[in-house]
Amino acid sequence: MNKTEPDLSFWAHWMHRALQLAYLADGSTSPNPLVGAVALDVAGKLVGEGFHARAGFPHAEVEALDQAGVKAKGGTLVVTLEPCCHQGRTAPCTEKILRSGVSRVVVAMQDPDPRVSGLGISRLREAGVEVLTGLLEKEAAFQNRAYIFRVRTGRPWGILKWAMSLDGRTGLPSGESKWISGSRARSWVHKLRATCDAVIVGSGTIRADNPLLTSRGISEPEPLRVALTRSLNLPFDAQLWDVKVAKTLIAYGPDALKDLLAKFPPGPEHLALDSTDPLELLNALAKKNCNRVLWECGPALAASAIEMGCVQELAIFMAPKLLGGVPAMTPLANLGYTAMNQVLFVSDCSVKTIGQDWLFKMLLPQLEV
Amino acid sequence: MNKTEPDLSFWAHWMHRALQLAYLADGSTSPNPLVGAVALDVAGKLVGEGFHARAGFPHAEVEALDQAGVKAKGGTLVVTLEPCCHQGRTAPCTEKILRSGVSRVVVAMQDPDPRVSGLGISRLREAGVEVLTGLLEKEAAFQNRAYIFRVRTGRPWGILKWAMSLDGRTGLPSGESKWISGSRARSWVHKLRATCDAVIVGSGTIRADNPLLTSRGISEPEPLRVALTRSLNLPFDAQLWDVKVAKTLIAYGPDALKDLLAKFPPGPEHLALDSTDPLELLNALAKKNCNRVLWECGPALAASAIEMGCVQELAIFMAPKLLGGVPAMTPLANLGYTAMNQVLFVSDCSVKTIGQDWLFKMLLPQLEV
Repeated sequence: MNKTEPDLSFWAHWMHRALQLAYLADGSTSPNPLVGAVALDVAGKLVGEGFHARAGFPHAEVEALDQAGVKAKGGTLVVTLEPCCHQGRTAPCTEKILRSGVSRVVVAMQDPDPRVSGLGISRLREAGVEVLTGLLEKEAAFQNRAYIFRVRTGRPWGILKWAMSLDGRTGLPSGESKWISGSRARSWVHKLRATCDAVIVGSGTIRADNPLLTSRGISEPEPLRVALTRSLNLPFDAQLWDVKVAKTLIAYGPDALKDLLAKFPPGPEHLALDSTDPLELLNALAKKNCNRVLWECGPALAASAIEMGCVQELAIFMAPKLLGGVPAMTPLANLGYTAMNQVLFVSDCSVKTIGQDWLFKMLLPQLEV
Repeated sequence: MNKTEPDLSFWAHWMHRALQLAYLADGSTSPNPLVGAVALDVAGKLVGEGFHARAGFPHAEVEALDQAGVKAKGGTLVVTLEPCCHQGRTAPCTEKILRSGVSRVVVAMQDPDPRVSGLGISRLREAGVEVLTGLLEKEAAFQNRAYIFRVRTGRPWGILKWAMSLDGRTGLPSGESKWISGSRARSWVHKLRATCDAVIVGSGTIRADNPLLTSRGISEPEPLRVALTRSLNLPFDAQLWDVKVAKTLIAYGPDALKDLLAKFPPGPEHLALDSTDPLELLNALAKKNCNRVLWECGPALAASAIEMGCVQELAIFMAPKLLGGVPAMTPLANLGYTAMNQVLFVSDCSVKTIGQDWLFKMLLPQLEV
């Protein structure tokens, strides 16, 4: 290793491994980012692995270096995000790294947290450690897109999910909307919820579907279930009000009939908002440590969330069925476009088969709000 | 070849080649089927190839055997459809085959034409020729699905095509619908038209889009363009009325204001129907030798065509765009379903990328009409 330095593909191999490790805690680390780390000894052999499991738990670097022990000395730490240099709930990782004696740190990307933001890398370099940065930066940024977005904008990354038929219907004219997609698609949605910190619906969805909105035990704790309501005109016996399986937040606007709150079963948290704008709700959820939220709402709230820049990603299930219908239940209400050159163009699209259904995933452009 | 008989994979190889040859005339043979043929000599070497190019032109078997000449003697003819045994516009192929001296004929499937329907195969066997049948039968039946359907039902195979956004819109609330899909998708539609014998629209589509509906020169002649109208309330200066590029048929119902016909430019053929039901139109188009028609109509006519069993296949473009809209332009009007277990389930679905868009192709179940 001393005479012939390993090339980038060598570090890329281990960075891929570190990214995989980070994904093991997908959905569990908020408000913290996903981080994975690999420790290699002076000969380039694996001597430690770690990932950040949950806020307050050890950072990935600490896990990997503790596993490596003295074997880390003179070796390399490969980590998906810049090591922290500030005292948080845990001690600064930079000091741990310096104590470990590694001579090189390979970092995928800077931490956008203003308390770090390049200072962690500087601290290591000033202490004489060689730091390579930018390796698989795009992959690392995609992995932490929710965290990065929340740090930069102050609100969580939004995913909007819907299921529709081949002819773009989300329900029959009769109002029946269960089930358009198949059981494997619904299982996939449970997994998607497990990667989110909150799941949001409006009052129409609660009235029509009485959804449970959990990951069915995949994530522990379950994501926060949020009912966004203008009026508090909600059924008093919905599945959401039973907080034994998951927490529920009832977020209501200034025009709500607050006297109704006493009629709901105890359990759900109540949150008075200045307005029921999606943006206002997301600002409140950011304060509750949400990095990523899932919109599972009807067409009006979905259109409003898109218009307010509260949706960054779409997950669409298309079932191999024709429903028909006038007037139709469709995924989105009016977005206000009058010409074809105004409409929203999505990017980074992918399509795959999940059981009988197709899953479309894509990113929305950043809207000016 | 005399001691060790070739196995099925040997014949399958040549049947694949014969199917490829048949496809060369896709869209040009109506009312006849697509047929491809390969002649092999006694040693199994290729000595002739042919396909049926157009009604009235030589059959595939004749083309292949003429090319082979005396080399066919003692050899094998591989053909995608049962050879005909009746005098049509051309002489019976069975007699040509017997004269050629081949000792074996390999056939993918029986011809459903009641004048053939196994009689061609019997004739060959009775004359001492070995006949293998059923090789790649499924592929051959799929290739000729339009022909087979027309022979069995008396009406052409229907393909319904639409382009929509991710949220199931076919246009903006303003009525603008050009263009949702990209230029490569539109080129693909030109190719699709080239494989069809007629392209059908309703009056709403003519008024809104003033479409040209040609293959842009890919097929010669162009498919017949059909305007189906209840009232004859159509613009007098539409692109469809110029028959220099392609023929046009104006098909109108009994309630039409027939006096209006004189106001259209000369050129289009006029056809009075007992009703403007899609089924009645298709019966008329079958008489005009159409095996396959393309529905490029709006939601009401599309829903009606599906309900009457006039659509066997869907081709859906989904563009990576969000349009929104209440009330929305959507691909299908009401199909009359009131419960989710009634809705139409499609099969044989495939999805692929064409330029910026996704193309979905699938088959519809046979509806009882």
